[in-house]
Order: sequence, then structure tokens, then C-alpha cells
Amino acid sequence: MQNKFMRRPAPIVTLTTDFGWGDYYVGAMKGAILRIAPEAHLVDISHQIPSQDVLAAAFVLRHAAGEFPPGTVHLAVVDPGVGTRRRPLALHSNGHLWVGPDNGLFSFVLDRADTRIHEIARRDLGRPDPSSTFHGRDLFAPLAAHLCRGLDLAAVGPPVADPVRLAASAPCKSAGRIAGHVIHIDGFGNLVSNIAAADIAPWGPALCIRLGAHVLTQLCRTYADVEPGAPLALIGSAGLLEIAVNRGHAARQLGVQRCAALVVEKL
Amino acid sequence: MQNKFMRRPAPIVTLTTDFGWGDYYVGAMKGAILRIAPEAHLVDISHQIPSQDVLAAAFVLRHAAGEFPPGTVHLAVVDPGVGTRRRPLALHSNGHLWVGPDNGLFSFVLDRADTRIHEIARRDLGRPDPSSTFHGRDLFAPLAAHLCRGLDLAAVGPPVADPVRLAASAPCKSAGRIAGHVIHIDGFGNLVSNIAAADIAPWGPALCIRLGAHVLTQLCRTYADVEPGAPLALIGSAGLLEIAVNRGHAARQLGVQRCAALVVEKL
Amino acid sequence: MQNKFMRRPAPIVTLTTDFGWGDYYVGAMKGAILRIAPEAHLVDISHQIPSQDVLAAAFVLRHAAGEFPPGTVHLAVVDPGVGTRRRPLALHSNGHLWVGPDNGLFSFVLDRADTRIHEIARRDLGRPDPSSTFHGRDLFAPLAAHLCRGLDLAAVGPPVADPVRLAASAPCKSAGRIAGHVIHIDGFGNLVSNIAAADIAPWGPALCIRLGAHVLTQLCRTYADVEPGAPLALIGSAGLLEIAVNRGHAARQLGVQRCAALVVEKL
Repeated sequence: MQNKFMRRPAPIVTLTTDFGWGDYYVGAMKGAILRIAPEAHLVDISHQIPSQDVLAAAFVLRHAAGEFPPGTVHLAVVDPGVGTRRRPLALHSNGHLWVGPDNGLFSFVLDRADTRIHEIARRDLGRPDPSSTFHGRDLFAPLAAHLCRGLDLAAVGPPVADPVRLAASAPCKSAGRIAGHVIHIDGFGNLVSNIAAADIAPWGPALCIRLGAHVLTQLCRTYADVEPGAPLALIGSAGLLEIAVNRGHAARQLGVQRCAALVVEKL
Repeated sequence: MQNKFMRRPAPIVTLTTDFGWGDYYVGAMKGAILRIAPEAHLVDISHQIPSQDVLAAAFVLRHAAGEFPPGTVHLAVVDPGVGTRRRPLALHSNGHLWVGPDNGLFSFVLDRADTRIHEIARRDLGRPDPSSTFHGRDLFAPLAAHLCRGLDLAAVGPPVADPVRLAASAPCKSAGRIAGHVIHIDGFGNLVSNIAAADIAPWGPALCIRLGAHVLTQLCRTYADVEPGAPLALIGSAGLLEIAVNRGHAARQLGVQRCAALVVEKL
Repeated sequence: MQNKFMRRPAPIVTLTTDFGWGDYYVGAMKGAILRIAPEAHLVDISHQIPSQDVLAAAFVLRHAAGEFPPGTVHLAVVDPGVGTRRRPLALHSNGHLWVGPDNGLFSFVLDRADTRIHEIARRDLGRPDPSSTFHGRDLFAPLAAHLCRGLDLAAVGPPVADPVRLAASAPCKSAGRIAGHVIHIDGFGNLVSNIAAADIAPWGPALCIRLGAHVLTQLCRTYADVEPGAPLALIGSAGLLEIAVNRGHAARQLGVQRCAALVVEKL
């Protein structure tokens, strides 16, 4: 196919924060990037991560950021420990660059063959008079900008071997039984569990899924496999077992919150 | 006037969804576009279409997307039927390209002289292992990216002659009387009806507008034509009759919801 | 450092409105810019300014827009007086260009040595058939686009010497005492006052800060200087005295709203 618009692409910087859209924080951070790298193409992933919810941000990064082209710089700021001694990090992993606080945000994107993690020690790359409460603007945004302009990762500071990782939330597996829990509730009310497709694939379709008082005995392919208003289980787009309600809101209709237990048994 | 910045513009891809800003869905879809078309300029129209509300999305597309320059690609995903046999579509209409599910989303942008509609049959253009629940990421985003890189519309699949259209919600007209209803309530609480300026223009300003127990007898030019807190009727920026409250929130103050009946009579 | 991606940057246009993300307004305005300046890089600052809250928008513009590189065009539309005789303005200030209604939006970015303010009189630069209710799309967006393409500011209309300014909300200072108030509550619930760091810096750390029944007697450096759940005072990233709760939501926990009085005394 012919390309009408062939041109050198702008370097991409994505943004993931819990700042919300109503304050000056998002704009200040974008300005701080563009002042250093005016050619960057800024792409909003989310600014509505629940306030200070590092796990929710790590989940979004895992399933959104990986879709971008190699060389993308991902700036992630959910930072309840701002101003403390928690380390600021810059990472290379899976062909992408990542910048943010060392608090577990990147838990699910480490462990690649190409992963290299560095502490941001060269404070001269950030704002000359940094605040103690907004490292997103004063340190992380400038670093992301410098990386997207070609700064070598090793130049930012010493390597880090022990990044903070969120406690593994792997499900508990025994013969013919997996006990997991709801790790994310999306905006449609779908309940995303920590049970992966691969965990239950060998059992075929003869399953019993229990979530509180609710019991489901088949794995559907898509929402519309059941009547509108009825609950169902399926493998969602993150590759994880999900409980949903066709054209409804499972969390509200089933009265379920994050962390609710979910058990799958082979029939 | 001289152009300081003359450069070849990046191809524009707009996004309109009901995904909300808190999940990984928006980011994953953006990444899927940029992986194929890293030079694309992504422009968010809305990710806060009410959940699964195809009519609201069709209204936003009609009044927002048409403002963009010719050649823009509009990606629209409000898709309660994802994974069913509803057809995935790619359209050319009004000089723009449009990609999304065949569920009525494009009802108000068809019927142009240049309209050509195709079913997306070539699944090799999408993700190799598509999910059944997120065609936004796995099929529509890649298609939008290929179209913005110059893929010929006819190459995506066979032409479609019978796209799904939302039931017409034209007002009911008789001599000196038009009965319509509220089709949209905006974020300011303004009540947008399906009665067009042209429907009532011949009558001049001597009108009686009834909405529940509320009666208005003049057509204003702008909000500030009445006192703060008072209700008014005017022709809004969509070219439709609107009921508003100056510096207030008409929906709350008048107790009106979408679909409420509205009658205009010539005096 | 070497630049992998050296290219001429696209001209930047930022957007700050109270339109919310659920309507067609944001998209229509973006389209109206790109139709004239398809090479512009659109950057969202906020579309969730509280409805018609000019002060909140002025605060966001002050602390976000200034971070952008020189030459940026800032389009700001919080416009309760749309369609009245309030003047449409285009400004040059601090090396940036600003476009929006003359209602105080730009109060905090005037008074620079390079400030030049013009009324937008040349309506031929806007939409041929402008609405009376959406100058964001019909007048301000086209103007921003023309300015980002290099239109000379003086060409838009006559100079303005008396732009509307929001009533100064400077704190009341006496010997050893400053009485101010909460001017902004951010999305984390932090209470931002109108008392600047410089106002209290000479007093050192021996302060008494009163906010309703709450008394704080030290100025912290960052949130984590107190236990989770405890209130604290610090100088926030806007350079203003803030009251916060570590890992909590000060506004809710302390029961404080915007405009609440705050007194600082030297001990």
C-alpha cells in the first residue's frame, strides 16, 4: 500500500497519572515536556487513575503502554511518596522507555530480556528549583523529554537492581481448582480477575465459577452470548477471566468490589 | 499572511468512545494506531459518551467530526454488540473517513454524494489474535491506522448498501405546530431538542414553546438575553432549538430528562 | 546530547475549557483549529474547569500555561457571557499568545513587559455564520489557528488598554499576621491558599496556621512529613501555602470549602 503522508514520526510520550483533568497539574507537566522537547507527540493514556492507587496504574500501564511502538517514552506519575526518599527511576524495558517513581508502578513491565533500570540521580536534568510535592513537573517530565530527545539511559544515574515490586497477586492453584480475586473493575462495571486464560484453558468449557453467591457454569466468548441483563464469564481483552453482565454493570448488579474472591473449579 | 511553520501536516485520527478515561482501553487503542501509523496526530473527541449510548455518540460525531479538515480519519467505538455478527465498517463520507461498528453510530453522517461504505472483511489488517470483546483495539484501530497511511477503502472488503440507521427522531409537524423532544442534555444542563432552526424560522419570533409545565414565548439570541437564573429558548450551536437557564443548569432546574416532549406553536 | 529525532516542531495550541469531555464542544473546537492549521499540535490542558468558573480557569492558566515553550498559543474558553458585548481578545504575554473572552480569564498572565492586548474585531477570520452561543468554535478557535500560522497580533483588531481583571484576592497583611483564604481545592482535596511562600518566608518555621477549628504549628516540606491521615501545611507546587492530609483528602476530612478563611501568625 502506498503512503500518502510518509514523514518522520514525532517521538511519542505517553502520560498516565492520577491528577484528574480539573487541575493545572496535567497541563504543567505537558508544558514541562514540550519546553525541552517541542517536537514530542503527547498522548494521554489516563489522568483518572484512582487517587494514589499504584496498583491500578500498574495495571493500566501493563495493558495500554505495551501497545505503543518501540521507542515510546511512558511517563507515569502516581506518587503518594513524592518528596520522600523513594527513588526516581528511568527504565528501558520491552523496547520502550519508562519514567516515574520507584513505588511498584512498573511491576508488570519489568523482567524482559532487555530491562535496564536506572535511578535518576542527575538532578541538573530537572527543574532548577524543584518543589517537594510535584516531581511530575519538576523531575519526571523533564527526564522524559530528555530521553525522547535521545539522552542515553545510563547517563541519568546508577543502575538499580531492586526496584519496588507490588506484592504478587497470583491466584492460588490446586488440582482442579483456582482461587483468585477481582483485581480491577472497569468503567463498564466488568470484573477483571487475576486468573489468566492459560490457567483454565486445559480444563475446557466444563467449569464452575463462584463469585460470592453467584455461580456461572460456562465460559462465554463475548458479552452477547447471554441475554441482556444476565451475568457471564469470559476471557477479556487483557487475557484474564472476567465476570460481566451483558449490556449491564456487573459490579453494581452483583454487588461486587475490588478484591472480592473468585473460585474456578473443573467440573 | 505568512506562515512561520509551514510543514506537511500529520494525518489526523480522531477518537470517540464510551471507554471513560480511567481504564487501559483508550491507551491500548491509541497504541494500536501508532504502532501502525506512528506519524498520526491523535485527537480526542470524547471518551465519555454515556456507556453503550449509540445515539449520544452519533450526535457527537455529527456535530464535532464534521468540523475537521478533509481526509481526517474518525475512529468511533461505542459497541455493545462487540463479538456478535454486527458488521465492522469503514466509510468515506463528506471527504472524511470513518471506522467503527455497524450499529447506527454513523446514522447522521451518511447520505452525502460521496458516501461509500465497506464492510471490514480483511481481518489480516487487524491484530493476529483478536479478542472477542475489544474490537476497538484489535480491529478498528489498526484499520484507522491503515486508512490514514493511504490504504484504499475498497481494499478492506465488500461494499455495504444497508448500514444500520438509528430510527429517525424527526419532530412531528402540522400547521403552526411542531412536536419534538429533548435529544441531548449537555454538560451545562442545556436541553437540545430535535427541532431545527429551519422548522420554526418562517414563524418569526411570535412562538409559544411548552416543555412540561414550562412555557416560553420568545426565542432569544443568547443566554444573557434573560436574567441570571431565568429559563430561555434559543437556537443553539448545533442549529437546533435549545432550552437553557442563563448561568444555570436547565435540566436540574426544570427537572427535565432526555426524551422529554417539547411543543412549539405559532402565535 | 545527540538528538535522534531532530525535526521542526509543530506549533502548539493548548485548550482550556469548562466544556467537559462528554459533548461535541471539545471536538468541534479542535476540528475548527485543524481545518485552518492542520499542522498544529493540540494539547489538552483541561476541559473540566468547573462550569462557568472563570477564577478556576484563570488559576489553571497561570500555573499550567506558563510552562509551555515560547510561541505556544493558548486557547481558553470559559465564557458565561458568550453572545453579549464582552470583548473577544487575543494577547501576547510572556512570549506566549492567548485567545479567549475578556472576562478575567487572563488576569494572572498580564502585566509582563511584553504584554500586548488586542480586541478581535476582524470577524472575517472566524466562521462565516457564527452562532451566538459557541464563540469557542466560531471565533476563538479560528483565531488561535490563524495566530499559530503566523498572523500578526495587531492585525486582529484595535489595542485594548483595560482588560477585565478579577478582583484581586491578595491576603491581608499586618505585623506578624496574614489573613488569606482558600482559593482552590485540587482533585486530591488539597487546600491551596492565596498566601505566597514569600509572604511567610521571613518568619521561619515558627508559625501558627489556623483554618476553622484546625491549628497547625509547623510548615512541612512534603506530605509524608506527617503520619498518614494527619493534616499538614506546606508550600505547594504553585508557590502557595497549602493545607493537605498525608494520603488523605483534606477538604473532606477537615470539612473545608473554597473561600474558607486561613490565618497565619508568627510565633
